Amino acid sequence: MKIDLGCSATITLYDTTLRDGAQREGLSLSVQDKLQIAKLLDRLGIPFIEGGWPGANPKDVQFFWQMREEPLEQAELVAFCSTRKPGRRAADDPMLQAILAAGTRYITVFGKSWDLHVTEGLGTTLQENLAMIRDTIAYLRSQGRRVIYDAEHWFDAYRHNPDYALQTLVAAAEAGAEWLVLCDTNGGSLPHEIAAITAAVLAESHHLQHLPLGIHTHNDSGTAVANALAAVQAGARMVQGTINGYGERCGNADLCSVIPNLQLKLGYRCLPQEKLQHLTEISRSISEVVNLAPDDHAPFVGLSAFAHKGGIHVSAVQKNPLTYEHIAPEQVGNCRRIVVSEQAGLSNILHKMAGFGIRLDKSDPQARLILERLKTLELQGYQFEAAEASFELLVRGLLGQRSHPFEVLSFNVTTTTRSDWNSKDWDPSGEATDVQSLAAVKIAVQGQTRVTAAEGNGPVAALDGALRKALLEFYPQLEAIHLSDYKVRILDGRAGTSAKTRVLVEFSDGHRRWTTVGVSTNIIEASCRALVEGFEYSLLPPSSPLPAAAEHRSNDSVRVAQTAMAAPAASS
Amino acid sequence: MKIDLGCSATITLYDTTLRDGAQREGLSLSVQDKLQIAKLLDRLGIPFIEGGWPGANPKDVQFFWQMREEPLEQAELVAFCSTRKPGRRAADDPMLQAILAAGTRYITVFGKSWDLHVTEGLGTTLQENLAMIRDTIAYLRSQGRRVIYDAEHWFDAYRHNPDYALQTLVAAAEAGAEWLVLCDTNGGSLPHEIAAITAAVLAESHHLQHLPLGIHTHNDSGTAVANALAAVQAGARMVQGTINGYGERCGNADLCSVIPNLQLKLGYRCLPQEKLQHLTEISRSISEVVNLAPDDHAPFVGLSAFAHKGGIHVSAVQKNPLTYEHIAPEQVGNCRRIVVSEQAGLSNILHKMAGFGIRLDKSDPQARLILERLKTLELQGYQFEAAEASFELLVRGLLGQRSHPFEVLSFNVTTTTRSDWNSKDWDPSGEATDVQSLAAVKIAVQGQTRVTAAEGNGPVAALDGALRKALLEFYPQLEAIHLSDYKVRILDGRAGTSAKTRVLVEFSDGHRRWTTVGVSTNIIEASCRALVEGFEYSLLPPSSPLPAAAEHRSNDSVRVAQTAMAAPAASS
Repeated sequence: MKIDLGCSATITLYDTTLRDGAQREGLSLSVQDKLQIAKLLDRLGIPFIEGGWPGANPKDVQFFWQMREEPLEQAELVAFCSTRKPGRRAADDPMLQAILAAGTRYITVFGKSWDLHVTEGLGTTLQENLAMIRDTIAYLRSQGRRVIYDAEHWFDAYRHNPDYALQTLVAAAEAGAEWLVLCDTNGGSLPHEIAAITAAVLAESHHLQHLPLGIHTHNDSGTAVANALAAVQAGARMVQGTINGYGERCGNADLCSVIPNLQLKLGYRCLPQEKLQHLTEISRSISEVVNLAPDDHAPFVGLSAFAHKGGIHVSAVQKNPLTYEHIAPEQVGNCRRIVVSEQAGLSNILHKMAGFGIRLDKSDPQARLILERLKTLELQGYQFEAAEASFELLVRGLLGQRSHPFEVLSFNVTTTTRSDWNSKDWDPSGEATDVQSLAAVKIAVQGQTRVTAAEGNGPVAALDGALRKALLEFYPQLEAIHLSDYKVRILDGRAGTSAKTRVLVEFSDGHRRWTTVGVSTNIIEASCRALVEGFEYSLLPPSSPLPAAAEHRSNDSVRVAQTAMAAPAASS
Repeated sequence: MKIDLGCSATITLYDTTLRDGAQREGLSLSVQDKLQIAKLLDRLGIPFIEGGWPGANPKDVQFFWQMREEPLEQAELVAFCSTRKPGRRAADDPMLQAILAAGTRYITVFGKSWDLHVTEGLGTTLQENLAMIRDTIAYLRSQGRRVIYDAEHWFDAYRHNPDYALQTLVAAAEAGAEWLVLCDTNGGSLPHEIAAITAAVLAESHHLQHLPLGIHTHNDSGTAVANALAAVQAGARMVQGTINGYGERCGNADLCSVIPNLQLKLGYRCLPQEKLQHLTEISRSISEVVNLAPDDHAPFVGLSAFAHKGGIHVSAVQKNPLTYEHIAPEQVGNCRRIVVSEQAGLSNILHKMAGFGIRLDKSDPQARLILERLKTLELQGYQFEAAEASFELLVRGLLGQRSHPFEVLSFNVTTTTRSDWNSKDWDPSGEATDVQSLAAVKIAVQGQTRVTAAEGNGPVAALDGALRKALLEFYPQLEAIHLSDYKVRILDGRAGTSAKTRVLVEFSDGHRRWTTVGVSTNIIEASCRALVEGFEYSLLPPSSPLPAAAEHRSNDSVRVAQTAMAAPAASS
């Protein structure tokens, strides 16, 4: 029942991250960003990449020009535009001239399907709208271009006036479109409606030149992925969506979920199997380019998508993964993560340790010592599941394998108001602050002592600055490291300002990311701990287990150790 | 086609945010958090609230005890547990004694459905697993409890061995369960499979005491919401899910999407219509309690869910909203956001102001001034929903009605390590810290100036102490006030330690509670602002509107004033 491999139809993928995806609030793409994303999509093997609406946006004009200098390996770059203006000849519409100038072989034209949108939105007649669709497509075809037709608001249109809606598709088909794409523009349809209406359109195929159908869904009902699947199961053969589901309002259908569902579960052909293994990497790279934190809980590609907690469960997963995982994570380039947590069992921890090259046997008394220590610390508010770098340092410390590359001997952080500060005059936005922090630290490094100080717009920024000043002299490689995220959680907030504070700091060197944790009743100390461990961790030699651990090495552990720095450890 | 109002069956909602939701990586709930969430769910009208597994976790034992002191208004609190251990009498299993001790009328028992999990995971026989299900439920029934049965890994189990899977349900039904809940534990099923298997189980209803079925889905395929809907459409009558879709790996079915889809689109009865209007508020309040940033792009309840861009589009939306919105946002307590004109925002704010006795007309230029100021502040990270005390002070300030009872003229906060401190010797738990903070403040009160200082185990505690020392001489009533919660959120964490910090402080005088907010790039200043506003707010005469406002009062405004503090205003 699970995999219907009898169905081996090819589904044509059409990515609109660069156009519809960029409509997401808070997402803004430079031309350079767009070029980078196009290359990533091309590498993933997506056959159609919609680049934007040249003419509507000056950036898009430049993007299409630059793309002609750096052609894609396999994908078709597509320009997107509306039908011509009412009452104008297509050949005279400057908007269409800009589209042709973009120089793509394929052009996607979107048109109105819903009678109300024609009469109320465009303010024209139903007949003129049909002519606009027909003329626009015929004109682009006459200029040697191939056309995909996006039927906007299709599903609402069909529910309200199916006859007219079908006439718009007939117009597009007769004018020479190659694909008819049914768009759920408002995102309000549910899978059973998508399936029924897609099937109803296919039943009219003889009026539609037997053209293949596509589907374009939005996530306003939380069902964009299921809607795309429902349309494909009803006979659609193109899926339009975006990487990571970026898009206006609640986003578009997330191709990172659509693709593995179609290919691994329903047996359709979307991407070559070896390309599918790049899915996780491409998803995360694109989130880097657009500068949005990746969704750790995203299906298939999220950091937590194959994370397991709990002792008994974990040993069962290792015995027979497919009874606890819906797909093998490697198929989409993700990996299994065993999470160190309150319920952590010994096998969790040993697995995790193997990930950084320390291999202990279950019966080893040191293993039990580590487990006990960890459980005590977690009760006290320490949290390792989010801070694997601190976990590794802790374990190495307990095993006597931690070589402190530096020691902080003291610090002092002062936060002071400037002279004309007054609580009455506060700017509540916090944009302009007249408060300054200054940190001084004393550090011992390689037998020498340094005292340094730095200012910052907050106490932690000042502390970070002072630590770096002292350390860079000895470890110039720390220059490349920056703090990429900073989180504070007050444990038992009801203790008010006396509560214990847990600080998580994420670091990045441009390639790897690692997170450390610091816990203290004093938020400054908690931050200092996380900073110090972050720098210390970066100074560990990557993928080279310490000597003591090497004794326990086997072929298996070496493999794990090599992959563990790039991504959390996977068991096989 | 859109609304099948012919179907008016009732769907029983079952929330598992406190148990399955808490499995989300990075989410950790204190007993106090759990109590708060249970109250919010009760207010939303959820009939079943799963509280946890008492016994498996000491925190859960305490939670169930405390819940007996503060009973819910309408919801049933449910305890969750597994079947008894293999080879043991149910009455002798200490795990079940802990469950009974929790004192709930309803208990949810989960059992194994999948033959492989029985033989490989539990290491027992298929017959013994059936006995475990039967005995556990029968024993709990004999103790006067009502039982919901969760069939773990149901869909995978049914695909592999439907006969055995059905036998487990028969065992549960015959032993006295009231509900049989089909769980897609690995989250790998797609809607068509869920529908087909649910229908197949219903076809066996005569073997299952004609018990109603429930559905419990996970989002590993990105289709958790669609899966829940598919099961309901196939005949399931209970939906288990979590608020905001929190849950292990990729999360559970998000009740914030499931409920409006079922009720507004498919015509099922889930919640009283007036309760549904609290959905957005409850979703956001729970994200505050668990201290996770709300997902702005969440369907139905996200900040961007009904956001509209662009001029023509916007006027079309205003002319005929339902051609551009899949539901009316007010139905779920959300609101349309239009960049050009914020009508909804204005009435919200006027409602809110009426709540503390200031009544302005929509046409009043002051109203527009306040709106503009607030919009700017919110863009900058200020958040008044969670900090109504700061909001009131801000509005009074803008209207010239703020009488600063004291002014902080300067402060200085120092955090220093003690002499024998060394980063090498850290206790990672943060229990013992050798770091001390000291704060000095200069305050002007009633024409006099005071300079005071205090120590604390953190910078904010020291600042709190110093402020109190200065203020208590003039306002001895501040003695009764304590800080009851303290929360920190880093806005744009990706800016690292230079990011802006938002601090929320909750105060209590034993009767009332109020929350203030402070925003600054400097966490110490942000905390100082929240502290100062908290003290200032406590010095306002409670529930007596200022004279200027009282002139505008009407019966209506009094009514609004009474409700506005409890919930954000809905526009009509």
